[in-house]
Amino acid sequence: MAAAKTTTTSAQQTSSAPLRLDAPRIPPLAYSGRVQLKALLDRPESVVGRHVIVGGWVKSAKEVKKKAAAPPSFATATEETTDAGEGGKGKDVSCVEILQSRIPLLRSLLDVFGGGGYVQRKKRENVIVPNHKVLPPKASTAYLLLTDGSCVPSLQVVVDSSVATPSRLLPTGTCLLVEGQLERAEGKHAIELKAEKVLHIGTVDFDKYPLSKKRIPLDTLRDYSQFRPRTTTVATVVRIRSSLSFATHTFFNEHAFIDVQVPIITSTDSEGFSNMLKVNTLEQKAEKEKLDTIYETEGVSLEHVKAAAKEKSNIIEHLKRTESNREALAAAVQDLRKTNELASQMEAREKRKLGASFKDDDKVDSSKEFFPFQTYLTVSGRLHLESYACALGNVYSFGPRFLADKTDSAKHAAEMWMVEVEMAFSLLKDSMNCANDFFKYLCNWVLIHCSEEMKFVAKRIDNTCVNRLQQIILGSPVMMTYHEAIDVLRKAEDKKFETNFESGFALTSEHLSYLTDTIYQKPVVIYNYPKEAKPFYARQNDDGTVAAFDLVVPKLGTIISGSQNEERLNMISSRIDELGLPREKYEWYLDLRRNGTVKNSGFTLRFDLMVLFATGLGNVRDVIPFPRSYGKANN
Amino acid sequence: MAAAKTTTTSAQQTSSAPLRLDAPRIPPLAYSGRVQLKALLDRPESVVGRHVIVGGWVKSAKEVKKKAAAPPSFATATEETTDAGEGGKGKDVSCVEILQSRIPLLRSLLDVFGGGGYVQRKKRENVIVPNHKVLPPKASTAYLLLTDGSCVPSLQVVVDSSVATPSRLLPTGTCLLVEGQLERAEGKHAIELKAEKVLHIGTVDFDKYPLSKKRIPLDTLRDYSQFRPRTTTVATVVRIRSSLSFATHTFFNEHAFIDVQVPIITSTDSEGFSNMLKVNTLEQKAEKEKLDTIYETEGVSLEHVKAAAKEKSNIIEHLKRTESNREALAAAVQDLRKTNELASQMEAREKRKLGASFKDDDKVDSSKEFFPFQTYLTVSGRLHLESYACALGNVYSFGPRFLADKTDSAKHAAEMWMVEVEMAFSLLKDSMNCANDFFKYLCNWVLIHCSEEMKFVAKRIDNTCVNRLQQIILGSPVMMTYHEAIDVLRKAEDKKFETNFESGFALTSEHLSYLTDTIYQKPVVIYNYPKEAKPFYARQNDDGTVAAFDLVVPKLGTIISGSQNEERLNMISSRIDELGLPREKYEWYLDLRRNGTVKNSGFTLRFDLMVLFATGLGNVRDVIPFPRSYGKANN
Repeated sequence: MAAAKTTTTSAQQTSSAPLRLDAPRIPPLAYSGRVQLKALLDRPESVVGRHVIVGGWVKSAKEVKKKAAAPPSFATATEETTDAGEGGKGKDVSCVEILQSRIPLLRSLLDVFGGGGYVQRKKRENVIVPNHKVLPPKASTAYLLLTDGSCVPSLQVVVDSSVATPSRLLPTGTCLLVEGQLERAEGKHAIELKAEKVLHIGTVDFDKYPLSKKRIPLDTLRDYSQFRPRTTTVATVVRIRSSLSFATHTFFNEHAFIDVQVPIITSTDSEGFSNMLKVNTLEQKAEKEKLDTIYETEGVSLEHVKAAAKEKSNIIEHLKRTESNREALAAAVQDLRKTNELASQMEAREKRKLGASFKDDDKVDSSKEFFPFQTYLTVSGRLHLESYACALGNVYSFGPRFLADKTDSAKHAAEMWMVEVEMAFSLLKDSMNCANDFFKYLCNWVLIHCSEEMKFVAKRIDNTCVNRLQQIILGSPVMMTYHEAIDVLRKAEDKKFETNFESGFALTSEHLSYLTDTIYQKPVVIYNYPKEAKPFYARQNDDGTVAAFDLVVPKLGTIISGSQNEERLNMISSRIDELGLPREKYEWYLDLRRNGTVKNSGFTLRFDLMVLFATGLGNVRDVIPFPRSYGKANN
Repeated sequence: MAAAKTTTTSAQQTSSAPLRLDAPRIPPLAYSGRVQLKALLDRPESVVGRHVIVGGWVKSAKEVKKKAAAPPSFATATEETTDAGEGGKGKDVSCVEILQSRIPLLRSLLDVFGGGGYVQRKKRENVIVPNHKVLPPKASTAYLLLTDGSCVPSLQVVVDSSVATPSRLLPTGTCLLVEGQLERAEGKHAIELKAEKVLHIGTVDFDKYPLSKKRIPLDTLRDYSQFRPRTTTVATVVRIRSSLSFATHTFFNEHAFIDVQVPIITSTDSEGFSNMLKVNTLEQKAEKEKLDTIYETEGVSLEHVKAAAKEKSNIIEHLKRTESNREALAAAVQDLRKTNELASQMEAREKRKLGASFKDDDKVDSSKEFFPFQTYLTVSGRLHLESYACALGNVYSFGPRFLADKTDSAKHAAEMWMVEVEMAFSLLKDSMNCANDFFKYLCNWVLIHCSEEMKFVAKRIDNTCVNRLQQIILGSPVMMTYHEAIDVLRKAEDKKFETNFESGFALTSEHLSYLTDTIYQKPVVIYNYPKEAKPFYARQNDDGTVAAFDLVVPKLGTIISGSQNEERLNMISSRIDELGLPREKYEWYLDLRRNGTVKNSGFTLRFDLMVLFATGLGNVRDVIPFPRSYGKANN
C-alpha cells in the first residue's frame, strides 16, 4: 500500500506538464490526486504557471458567448481555447488511466472502475458522440467560482466550450474535477485555472437544489443539513469548530490530562433531576399494531410464521457454530426477532379472539429488553469522570451529552458536545483557574489558527468577534460571589427586575445578562451559589452555599459551570436523601467517598456555545453539524 | 484568576525548604500544589534533596515496628523521625493556610474550606487529641507505595508514626497528600519520600473495598468500573487509550482533515439492517403501573393531583416569564410532567372503573414523545460524514457508536468508539492507503509516546506487543481480493472448514483467522467483496462485487472496514430497493447523489479494537472506561 501511495503522488507530478522550475511544489492531498484550493489561494503569486488538478463545487458561474460562432471541428477560434487544447495534447488520458498504468499491484482492483468512471473519459464530449448527431453549440467560455471547503475564497476556473458543455457546468452546486494551468487573472481574482480537461461532472437538479437560490437565511438552511456546509458561512463555522476541537485536545495534552471516554448509555442521572432520554430496544406498541394489521389482511397463518421462525433459528445456530461474520449473523438475528414478534402478536390476537385476557398480552415484557435496567443517555459525564480522576489525577472528556429539554432552544439542543474536566487534589479555585486558562487558550487558538475564517466572520456575521476574543486573552473576568452579585443587582435602581431576591433564588438569564452586558461589559465568574441552584454533588460550604461557579459571558450567558465536589461521605449522603434521589443508583459514586476519597473539582464547557462565542452566531442549531429539529426526521 | 494560579506555584516553592541549588526545578501540576509522580520517577537521580507535595493512592504498604518503645512525648527516638520532625519545624501550616495567606483576592472563597479541611490540620494528631486520653502507640515506620496514575512505577513514601498513625495509612486504596523530602533509597527503589506532614487522608472501608485483595482477575474487575483504573494494569491501558485518542486527532490534523461531530441520535440506519437502540422519553408502562399502585394505596384523590398540576403550571409560567435558569425550569417542568402523568393515569383508572374502554387508555400516545419520529442511536456516522465530505473534502469523526448485538461479545460492546473518515474525490485505493497510513501512525505513536507503558504491557500482559507494532510500522499488509482469499482458503488442504464456499459467502472469523494467523502471520487487506457482505452504499463493481475492504489483523480480526461509496444515483437507488430499505429515510442521503455527486471513499477504525491490538488484551470490556454489562446497572 505504501507503493500505491507514492504512485498517487507521482501521477500528480506526471500530469504537471509545463513545469516551471522556479514555481514551488504544491503539496497534493495525500489521498487524492487533487490539490487543495487553500494551498493555491494562500499564496496565489507563487503558483502561477503550475499545472494542477482541482476539485470542488460551483458557487457561482457565468457564461460569456464568443462573437464568432465555433467552427464545427476540434479546433476552436479564440486564443484561450487554443491554449487549452494544446496544453491537453499528448496527455489525453483520464486520471484513472494514469493511475492504472502506474500501479501494477492494484491493476485488478482498478479494472472494476472501468465501467462507470469519470463522466468525461473522452475529451470534447460535446463533439464526439456516437450514434446520434449533435449540432455544435455556439462557442462560449464558462467562468466558474469553485470551492472545495478548505478556505474562504474560491478559485476562478475558466472552461472553454470546446472543453466541456457550459450548460452542464454552470448550475450552483455542480461538482467538478478539473485539470488545467494556473494563470494570472484580471480583475479581483489574483489567479485563475484555465481548464484543459474536465475529469468529473456531478450535475445538479436545479429546481430542487435548495442552494440554487442566491441567499438563504441560516434558519432555512437548517432544514438542509446535508447541503449547508457547501455555503461559505457554514463551511467557515465548521472549520472554526474543528479547530476548537483540536485546540481542546491539545490544551489538555499539554497539561498532562488523560482523555477518558465516558459512557453515553448510563443508568445514572448526573444532575439528579434531568429530563433524560431513554434507551431501549422494544418495539413501540403502535408499530406492533401496524404490523398486526398488515398480516391480518394478507391472510398469513400463525402456523406459517412459526415454521418460518424455526427455520430461521436453525440458520442462526449454523451461523454461530461457524463463527460467521457479524453482519450476516446480526441480519439473521434481526430477521428472527421480527418473525418471533409477529408470531407472538398473532398468538395474542388469537387468544383475544378466544376471550383470553387482553391485559396480559399488552404488558411490557422487560425481559426482552437489551438492558435489564432502564438506561438513559447521559446528561453529564462528570460523575463517571470523577472515578477516573480518583485514580489518574487530571482527566477530561469531550463528547456528546443529552437533555430532553425544549426550553431556551437557541442556546440548547437535545444533543450537545461538552468538554468535562475533573482534577483530584484540587479545590474550587483550581477548577476556576483551569477553566479560565482553557477559555483563554481557545480564544487565542482561534485567532492564530483561523485568521482567514475570523476575517470572514467579522465581515459577514459579527464585526466585534476579533475584538471580543482579544479582550478575553488580555483581560480577566470579574470575580464575585453569588451574594455579591445579588447585592449589585439590588442596587441596580435603573433596572426593575420582575423577581424579588429571595433566599436561594437562582439567577435568571435576565440577571446574568444585566451583569455581563450592562454593568461590567465583560465575562463574570460567579461562585458560592445557594445549594438549590446547583447539582447535588457540589461541595457544601459552612455558610449554606456550595463551592460551585459559573463563567458567564455577554450575550450567551453561562458558558462554563464548575464545582468543587463534595468529598465527605456523610455530607453527600445526606444531600442525596434531602433531594430524594434514588440512592441505589448512586452507590457506585458513593463508593469513591468510602474508599480513598480526595478533594477534587472540575467543570464543564458547553462546546457549542464556545463556537457561538467565537463566531457571534446566536443559535446552536447553526453550529451543530446535524441539529435535530423537534418536528423533522430528515437525518 | 491568573494571580491565584501564580500563587499556587509559589506556595509550592515556599514549602521547598532545604533547596539544593543543583536540583532542577520540578514542574508542579498547573491546577494543584502537588507534583506528578511521573515528573519524579522519570529522573529519580536528579530530584534527590527536593522538598515536594505528592498525592496518590496506596498500592501496598508495610509497617516496621521499632525496637525501642516510643517515649510518650512529641520527640521520637530514631534518626528518621527526628529528621522529619525538624524538617517540619517552622512550617507547621496546612496547605490550605499557605494558600490562604497568599491569595487575598480569594480569601472569602477560601474561608469556606476552614471547617472540613484536610484531615490532619494539626501535626502529630495521634498525640494531641483533646477531650480524651490516648495511649501513645508503639513507634513504627510505615513504608507505602503510592501511585497517582501518571506512570507505571510507584513512589515509596516513608511515614514515621510520629507524623501520622500508621494504621490509617496502610490499607490499600487509602488516599494521601503528603509533604516531605526526596531522598536516595536503599533496595529496589531509587528514591523515597520522607514524609514531614500528611495533609490529607482518605480512608478505606477495608472489608468492602474490592482492591483490598492482592490480585484480581480483569473480568472480576469489570464489576468495579469505579475502582479499576486504580490498578496498574487498567491505568496503563487507559493512558495508552488516551494517547491513541490524541494520536488520532493529530494524524488527521496533520493531513488537513476537518473534525465533524456527527449526530448520535438519528433516524437513519447507516448499515441498513442493524439492531439499533431506540431513544424515547415516554415512561415505560410497567413504571406507570408501579406509580399507579403507590398512589392507590396512599389514597390521593384525582382532585388533589389536578390542583397540584395547576399550581405547578403557574410556577413554570412564572419561571419562563422571568427567563429563569435552565436547572430550575427543567426541574419544574419535570415535576409538572410527573404530576400530569399521574393525573391522567388516575383519570384512566376511574374511567376503567366506570367501564370505559380499556384499550384507549393503554395506547402509546406518540404526540407526547420528544421526537415525533422514532429515533435511534447511531450505528455509524459515515453517511452523515459523507455529506460533509461533499462540501469540505476530507473529514473525520471520532465518537461513540451503538449496536444492540450480543454476539461475539469479547470484541463487541453495545457502545464503542469509532474513527470514521470520508474523502471526496477519492477511490477505494485512496481509502485503503489512508487507513493503512493511519494504522501505522497509531502503532508508531504508541511506541514513541507510551514507551514505559509498553514495557509494562510486554511484561504483564503480552510479551509480543512491541514486536507486533514494529512489524506493522516496517511492513505492509498482504493485499488480496475476496476471490483470491477464497482461492487460498480452498487450497488449504490441511484445514477442513465446516462451510462450503458458495457464491457470495461471507468470510467467517475462522477463515479470517486462518489467513492472518496461520498462512500469512501478518495483517491482510481483503477487498472487492460480494455485495451481500457489505452495506448498501458500497460502490458496485462491474463483476458483481463491491469496492469495499477490510484490514484484518491476527487474533482480533477486522480492525478497519472501508469502501468507495456508490456515487451513481441510479445504482444506489436500485440497491436500496433491492434490499427493501425504507426509502424515505435515505432521501436526504440520496440528495447528495442528485446534486453535485462525487467519487468518494472512507473507512471506519474500531478504536476499542485498536487498544486491544496495542496492548494484547482480548476483551473490549477491559479497555472501555465504563463497559455496560448486560446484567448490571451499576453506572
